[in-house]
Amino acid sequence: MKSDKAFFSGIEKNIGYVFENKGLIKTALTHSSYVNENKNSRDNERLEFLGDSILSLVVSNYIFNYKSNLKEGELTKIRASCVCEKSLINVANKLKIGDYIRLGKGEQNSGGKKRTSILADATEAIIAAIYLDSDLETVSKYVILWLEDTIVSAIKHKKDSDYKSKLQEEIQKVKGRVLKYEVVDVEGPDHDRKFTICVYCDNKLIGKGQGNSKKEAEQNAAQDALSKPNDNL
Amino acid sequence: MKSDKAFFSGIEKNIGYVFENKGLIKTALTHSSYVNENKNSRDNERLEFLGDSILSLVVSNYIFNYKSNLKEGELTKIRASCVCEKSLINVANKLKIGDYIRLGKGEQNSGGKKRTSILADATEAIIAAIYLDSDLETVSKYVILWLEDTIVSAIKHKKDSDYKSKLQEEIQKVKGRVLKYEVVDVEGPDHDRKFTICVYCDNKLIGKGQGNSKKEAEQNAAQDALSKPNDNL
Repeated sequence: MKSDKAFFSGIEKNIGYVFENKGLIKTALTHSSYVNENKNSRDNERLEFLGDSILSLVVSNYIFNYKSNLKEGELTKIRASCVCEKSLINVANKLKIGDYIRLGKGEQNSGGKKRTSILADATEAIIAAIYLDSDLETVSKYVILWLEDTIVSAIKHKKDSDYKSKLQEEIQKVKGRVLKYEVVDVEGPDHDRKFTICVYCDNKLIGKGQGNSKKEAEQNAAQDALSKPNDNL
Repeated sequence: MKSDKAFFSGIEKNIGYVFENKGLIKTALTHSSYVNENKNSRDNERLEFLGDSILSLVVSNYIFNYKSNLKEGELTKIRASCVCEKSLINVANKLKIGDYIRLGKGEQNSGGKKRTSILADATEAIIAAIYLDSDLETVSKYVILWLEDTIVSAIKHKKDSDYKSKLQEEIQKVKGRVLKYEVVDVEGPDHDRKFTICVYCDNKLIGKGQGNSKKEAEQNAAQDALSKPNDNL
């Protein structure tokens, strides 16, 4: 185990935040398996509980303000795709949290430092530690710094994946109109297929798109239809 | 529909908060069915999304700080029992939110003002409206004012309901020890039964409790066992 001084300066450098109360970051990095062997220490589970709510609010706040036209259902999906183990592990790896987690010997020997749930939980605990050491505004800056790419890409992905729904909505504005997607071409070898799909409204061609999957090509065809001046829309 | 002035003064009085941006509280009280009939208004669904995260953080913060000995699992259960439709409806009824919700005519005629989900969603939206009009500290005060009884009673209930688990933990500290609960007496008529239950460790009586249900009597017996100086514990 690193000396206290090296421990704090190392992790604080990685996080980019200097703690007034060093006990908070120590606790945030302490797994319950360590406490079982070192009775005077505290594990990070309570901090993890608090960090989960802080993370959720920071992400909610960000996406709520990002585009005022995102609907509640979209906001909920975007938040869920950002507040999850996968994105927490990304943060943990960026900040090299694994190097600083205090584990019990058994857990350490069985490769606990790489266990995804341990990394994700410690990341949430660190979020709570910064919050308790400062305030919501400060911790928000850090969370956004770490997660902004993930959040923005989730928003973009959500918007992209909505072209088909949007086109469907447009078409339905006139009762009885029917939308149809059709594969008109498939090129390339198995591992690199390229699909070309046309979309028709009442059998009139309104858009065309390509993609490595049918889904992607349909989305692109719908986007194409929406982007054109079109009597049918 | 009330005049704007009466609308704002009425709901602000009930909530105990005066909005700088009146548009926020108006939106918070606008159900999507109203927007369908009045195209220039906004519904409260985005605010509800944000309010949900704010509520969760405020409650998490409160119970995190309430007793430092509450474990993560307990904190999670307590939060879930406070951040739920039931407690939001209690708040909605306290603040008479139903009188101010703007609904579409169809929803109004089918008794929408009393629909629990509509009331709960509007309450979350109001929490977000106050937050956006002020800050986390201010909205926290309101949420705690409205929910403190619910939260404290959830904490107490959680603690109470843990006597059996605690006793079990104590007993298990010595391997092989066995705990047994036994009904030793049932009194009173069907609608007012009183159970007396004894709890034994390895057949030695260690506690006794009464209650209107077996569950309650067992809890009381466990509490009794924990409260006594006892060689077995």
